[in-house]
Amino acid sequence: MAKMRAFSESSNTFRGLFAAKSLMKTVEIPSLRVALIGAGKLAWSLIPALQEAGAEIVQLISRDAARGQHDREAYGIPVGGTRPAELLPDLDLVLLTVSDASIPEVVGQLAGRLSPATVLAHCSGSVPLSALSGTGAQSGVFYPLQLFTRAARTPLQGVPFFLEGNPGALELLQPLATAVSGRWYPLDSAGRRQLHLAAVWACNFPNLLFRLAESLMPAGMDFRVYEPLVRQHIDKVFRELPAASQTGPALRGDLPTLQAHLQMLADQPALAELYRTLSDLIRPGVWEGQTKKGSPGEP
Amino acid sequence: MAKMRAFSESSNTFRGLFAAKSLMKTVEIPSLRVALIGAGKLAWSLIPALQEAGAEIVQLISRDAARGQHDREAYGIPVGGTRPAELLPDLDLVLLTVSDASIPEVVGQLAGRLSPATVLAHCSGSVPLSALSGTGAQSGVFYPLQLFTRAARTPLQGVPFFLEGNPGALELLQPLATAVSGRWYPLDSAGRRQLHLAAVWACNFPNLLFRLAESLMPAGMDFRVYEPLVRQHIDKVFRELPAASQTGPALRGDLPTLQAHLQMLADQPALAELYRTLSDLIRPGVWEGQTKKGSPGEP
Repeated sequence: MAKMRAFSESSNTFRGLFAAKSLMKTVEIPSLRVALIGAGKLAWSLIPALQEAGAEIVQLISRDAARGQHDREAYGIPVGGTRPAELLPDLDLVLLTVSDASIPEVVGQLAGRLSPATVLAHCSGSVPLSALSGTGAQSGVFYPLQLFTRAARTPLQGVPFFLEGNPGALELLQPLATAVSGRWYPLDSAGRRQLHLAAVWACNFPNLLFRLAESLMPAGMDFRVYEPLVRQHIDKVFRELPAASQTGPALRGDLPTLQAHLQMLADQPALAELYRTLSDLIRPGVWEGQTKKGSPGEP
Repeated sequence: MAKMRAFSESSNTFRGLFAAKSLMKTVEIPSLRVALIGAGKLAWSLIPALQEAGAEIVQLISRDAARGQHDREAYGIPVGGTRPAELLPDLDLVLLTVSDASIPEVVGQLAGRLSPATVLAHCSGSVPLSALSGTGAQSGVFYPLQLFTRAARTPLQGVPFFLEGNPGALELLQPLATAVSGRWYPLDSAGRRQLHLAAVWACNFPNLLFRLAESLMPAGMDFRVYEPLVRQHIDKVFRELPAASQTGPALRGDLPTLQAHLQMLADQPALAELYRTLSDLIRPGVWEGQTKKGSPGEP
């Protein structure tokens, strides 16, 4: 039995994590024989994090043989494969790092092939735990809430993991998440679906607004002039939370500025309508008493 | 003539700024006798930055006498006052750090009182230069694109300043912006209005989306679990720009996920409608071929 290093992290708070790092110590976790199915963006960051935590990645299966070989060489993984049916025996953990849409197909190919001592886990924010049933293994979810790219390794320390599974799966996944990240939460499939929906509002949709902002800037000016402002705002959001971080003309009920902005958007009716909708959600009733039709500059 | 330190910054790029810091040297700028009108959030950060750049803040005028006195004591400013008419003579620069709405009133009280050798400048993102006419002074705009608070000093190094004015004003404001920030751009009033409108899209509106995200999270979970994800995303936005940073189900045209999300928003029709609008702006036509009425989960 080799040992796996892990944080002695007991607090689930972010600040707690960094405070706890200085208390990092070796805890006894059995070494693990792990296989990954899927050589994508997540695997690129997860494999070295698992290795540094002391897990032994014994196999990487990828539909794309060339990419699988590339990644095995990069990370010193002895065995490859292109189909789930080629899985080695006697694995402690099989992690699915394929796309959400591929999970049912992969699980179907594993039906009846895994031992009850193996944990099969997926890493998806939106696929329910029940999608893993029928393989004969323990099943679990090991979901890191973070962006990944093959262009660079994303550090996993401090990344929140959301865990779900039967007791046998959690017994393995909890210490693994402690070792890899130091920050994890139990969350059922319904809660994870909510978390994923909220992430669309917290990340995908703000990015659209950044794109619209860029399109509205003075000609020739680089979007990066907003970097200090946006970063200062993000600092405030995570220090004081979003409700306390709201500013702007809509919050102040500053109708002359709101109307001047609508006038500047007069030739882009979809943006003007969105401006009006968002302003009214920032301060319900901000337009009250304004004639919806016929006010200056309205579409 | 005292000297004012300034960066020898010639590039207006953000990365250029940090590269140039190591080349920081003393350049010859005449010392300035400066008065501020307005003891608010901006003044709280701007006064010490001006002092560190070598300017002499000789007077702080504040409608709120107690706050004016507090700030004068904090920053060692010799003379106070509560009305613009109390301005000292022989000033090089009068900076208006009052609210946008108060600028016309303050300018009215200064009418005919300033010497042609004095520069009168405001620091507003949305007030035109023309609002400063009629005082007899040189007029200019000295607008820092940043959030300010009285709770803490906001560093001004690297904050983009946007400058406008007649030649006499720019001759003073340009080296001052170089000394205080190292990063400034010439921009006329129309361009500044565009910049301000785009800032609403880049900051105020994303904050609303963060608030909505928080309201949609699993019960009892802290918004700060999104901190690593959002910060990673913001890094990407300013490295690769917003268009290259878009992700999510709408971009992928992932209709099952979009419809599942709409179903989860079924009892909040305003959010469901906004979800649909934003998704369609991320990928125009994403709903095409979907029945608007009667699809699963739609309001």
